[in-house]
Amino acid sequence: MTRIAIYETTLRDGMQGHGMSLSVEEKVRVAHVLDDLGIPFIEAGFPASNPKEAELFDRLAHESLRADVCAFGMTRRRDVSADQDPALRVLADSFAPVCTLVGKTWSLHLEKVVKVGRDENLAMIAESVAFLIAQGKRVIYDAEHFFDGYRDDPQYAIACLRAAAEAGAENVTVCDTNGASLPHEIAAAVRAVVAAVDAPVGIHCHNDAECGVANSLAAVAEGAVMVQGTMNGYGERCGNANLTSIVPSLQLKLGHDCLPTLEGWTEAAHYLDELLNLTPDPNQPYVGKNAFAHKGGMHVAGVNADPATFEHIDPAAVGNSRDVLVSELSGKGTVIAHAGGALDDATATRVVERVKELEHRGFQFEAADGSFDLLIRRETGDYEPLFRLESWRVITEKREDGRVQTEATIKIWVDGQRYVRVAEGNGPVNALDSALRAAIGERYPHLRDIKLVNYKVRILDEWKATGATTRVLLDATDGSETWGAIGVHENVIEASWDALVDSLEAGMVRSRAPSA
Amino acid sequence: MTRIAIYETTLRDGMQGHGMSLSVEEKVRVAHVLDDLGIPFIEAGFPASNPKEAELFDRLAHESLRADVCAFGMTRRRDVSADQDPALRVLADSFAPVCTLVGKTWSLHLEKVVKVGRDENLAMIAESVAFLIAQGKRVIYDAEHFFDGYRDDPQYAIACLRAAAEAGAENVTVCDTNGASLPHEIAAAVRAVVAAVDAPVGIHCHNDAECGVANSLAAVAEGAVMVQGTMNGYGERCGNANLTSIVPSLQLKLGHDCLPTLEGWTEAAHYLDELLNLTPDPNQPYVGKNAFAHKGGMHVAGVNADPATFEHIDPAAVGNSRDVLVSELSGKGTVIAHAGGALDDATATRVVERVKELEHRGFQFEAADGSFDLLIRRETGDYEPLFRLESWRVITEKREDGRVQTEATIKIWVDGQRYVRVAEGNGPVNALDSALRAAIGERYPHLRDIKLVNYKVRILDEWKATGATTRVLLDATDGSETWGAIGVHENVIEASWDALVDSLEAGMVRSRAPSA
Repeated sequence: MTRIAIYETTLRDGMQGHGMSLSVEEKVRVAHVLDDLGIPFIEAGFPASNPKEAELFDRLAHESLRADVCAFGMTRRRDVSADQDPALRVLADSFAPVCTLVGKTWSLHLEKVVKVGRDENLAMIAESVAFLIAQGKRVIYDAEHFFDGYRDDPQYAIACLRAAAEAGAENVTVCDTNGASLPHEIAAAVRAVVAAVDAPVGIHCHNDAECGVANSLAAVAEGAVMVQGTMNGYGERCGNANLTSIVPSLQLKLGHDCLPTLEGWTEAAHYLDELLNLTPDPNQPYVGKNAFAHKGGMHVAGVNADPATFEHIDPAAVGNSRDVLVSELSGKGTVIAHAGGALDDATATRVVERVKELEHRGFQFEAADGSFDLLIRRETGDYEPLFRLESWRVITEKREDGRVQTEATIKIWVDGQRYVRVAEGNGPVNALDSALRAAIGERYPHLRDIKLVNYKVRILDEWKATGATTRVLLDATDGSETWGAIGVHENVIEASWDALVDSLEAGMVRSRAPSA
Repeated sequence: MTRIAIYETTLRDGMQGHGMSLSVEEKVRVAHVLDDLGIPFIEAGFPASNPKEAELFDRLAHESLRADVCAFGMTRRRDVSADQDPALRVLADSFAPVCTLVGKTWSLHLEKVVKVGRDENLAMIAESVAFLIAQGKRVIYDAEHFFDGYRDDPQYAIACLRAAAEAGAENVTVCDTNGASLPHEIAAAVRAVVAAVDAPVGIHCHNDAECGVANSLAAVAEGAVMVQGTMNGYGERCGNANLTSIVPSLQLKLGHDCLPTLEGWTEAAHYLDELLNLTPDPNQPYVGKNAFAHKGGMHVAGVNADPATFEHIDPAAVGNSRDVLVSELSGKGTVIAHAGGALDDATATRVVERVKELEHRGFQFEAADGSFDLLIRRETGDYEPLFRLESWRVITEKREDGRVQTEATIKIWVDGQRYVRVAEGNGPVNALDSALRAAIGERYPHLRDIKLVNYKVRILDEWKATGATTRVLLDATDGSETWGAIGVHENVIEASWDALVDSLEAGMVRSRAPSA
């Protein structure tokens, strides 16, 4: 059926969400995740709204992405011509092949917010689009507050779109910026737009009435051929339209052509949450851990007789699975595959049991491959501890002069010899890390070269406040490879300690093993 | 416009959700919350599926609810007549004036799950409804898997509804049990049902394609006059259709008559989450903390000029309020708005400078309104510390027997008196919290009633690994109000300490201030 272009804006509109924060490095990783999914348009932000954004575009220019990176900006200011507008100049100078320009549609905003006349607004739209086209850019025009404007004055709203289309925009996207609209309103307006405007139409919705997904589907039903949104519905207020639900519905239920496959869909959705330090919503449609959960004997029997009795799609089509409690890593086949095939059936069964038990306690091995390797080795008897711990102690003090000091003491045994070391640090885990390396580094000098590159803390039962369980994820690298380690404990220091030890032991195993 | 009957099923279908658990006492409280909202139908479950359910019905029989309590059950078994069916007998004997009977519609289920012939199924529906009517009950008939059945064989699906209607059901509700359907499919099927069946029609949706809300609205647009769902979308897999979003859209956007007022809507939605030990979703449409959040100078200026520029409804209409977020992007106007206007220009400028400086160091006041209040007070000279810290010390030890122990010592001065206290805890922050409360609680006993309800840790510069900066966010509550506090430091314990102190000081300020 129709090809629907997917336009992902986590890096721009999604970042408006409450508490969203990503480093440049993490944004590049997000871009790669989206690119690997085959998403054709990735909006990255305004190329120079601050040094961090400028650096992101520098980085993206040198990543070989298949997707078109889109630079986002506004129509020209009312007091300068398009070619004199510094922001449009930045867009023109960006490496991005596509520029997405946002402009006004709604008289209320023209009068009360930007204080621009209606004709002047049309000129701003047309001249800004034309300028970027003349600079060799492809232009997508985003009509902000389109549906509010359309309710108010349909003719003027459509005139704004025509101005963009006639100036050469390759797509005009109608935006429900405030999320005010319901599907029947979206449908009626898009129908009118498709009939009146000579350019492909896109849709950009927000979720304020919990209709972001349905609104996007309603627009496609009326002829929109581009859907803008974010994975997992990231975005300000109640979020942008959630592509994680829209794309499977378009592709699997409505037969549209969006992405090459959705087999990596669930993994990608969860990975993005991890990057953003958000807990994946277990009840999320299509990709949630509970999305294909079956409770009660009749459901299970029904699904065994025919999955269609209780499942609206085949969970594998979105890379999800039927079993609630079993995660991606706890299928026996996955475990055997992970161990490189060198695992007999009984051992694999034991590993799966152990994974289930640990996941029940809050472990999550998806991002902790180092710890997972060690777990398999423990089950195959191929595990050798680096050292034997006698004890450790960490003291953190806030002194009368206001200074905070931390000191860790560690007592370990390696090959029959006892090492006692103390180290200071800028925090308890840093001090423990230093003390452990000081102790063990004498016996295994090359472990000193392992660097910890990422440290994430997630409070599981947040509602238990400071009595909650803590999950620590560490990434370590030896300069060529990177691996993850995990620790879970009610005490953040003990959880960090377990992850620290795993990260060094996994590094040791890797340095011994032939490189994969 | 049309009166739409709201039918709430948290106590039955909602309880199928993963991890949902309520005592009988809590279920009675839920029923009262729903009743206070004016919801006319409250489904309470099957009166005797276990002793707890039986006890619930005993309790509900003696509560004076305005709502009709609905007892839920299935059509008769295939091997007995309706008057011999023990489950139907339980329904007939229940105090509940309304019985909701669920029956099959879809041949796939008749063949593969219940193994009942198509004609026999029609007889089971008609006889079960007729039996309960004869026993003096009002009957709502829920047609399970209706939309799957309708896709398969529309004539048979409608015949099932007619059997119920002709036997006297006062409403036939069509169920999208597997959540497979999209709004256009719901609309087409409901249109056919309304034309073909001589009874009022209801709709019961699930959220598997993130269209539970839109599907319910689509059914109402085609003539359905009852909506079944749950508050906050509780329910198995991806949840039931979310009444928290459906009712405001029906009432405020579409002009239907559902409930007397929605002024208590936000409070009720949050209270139910609290009862279920769930964290209210800050991004939830209509009732979320972020649902009317404004970030950035232009938004704030626009809302000040006319709220309609950036708000799809008046937040007060659902008992929510506008939240002006303080962030890098925001300016003096935001700060003054937050302080309720009682801030002169020079002070506001100082606050903005201070916020910028702190945000540069990793603070984020969006989720830390308690700390932000204190920050303003420090600039206005209206700040009084609760105590003077002399010092604190935290020791965490992992002993030879593998046990981890934590102990915190605190030395503070309050009103010229020195308090030295020690406490153990399951982690360093928990121990510090206990020691601080032990010390300060003697002077300010009511501070002991402040509960920490959320503890979040975010590592900034994650790439600096254990040397990174740590941001701690705490939510505290005195049972009626909730506020957030923040601490940022390279040492997680010091960051937590700062947040702890802010949370108590902000609580103290609130208890002193006249309630808003």
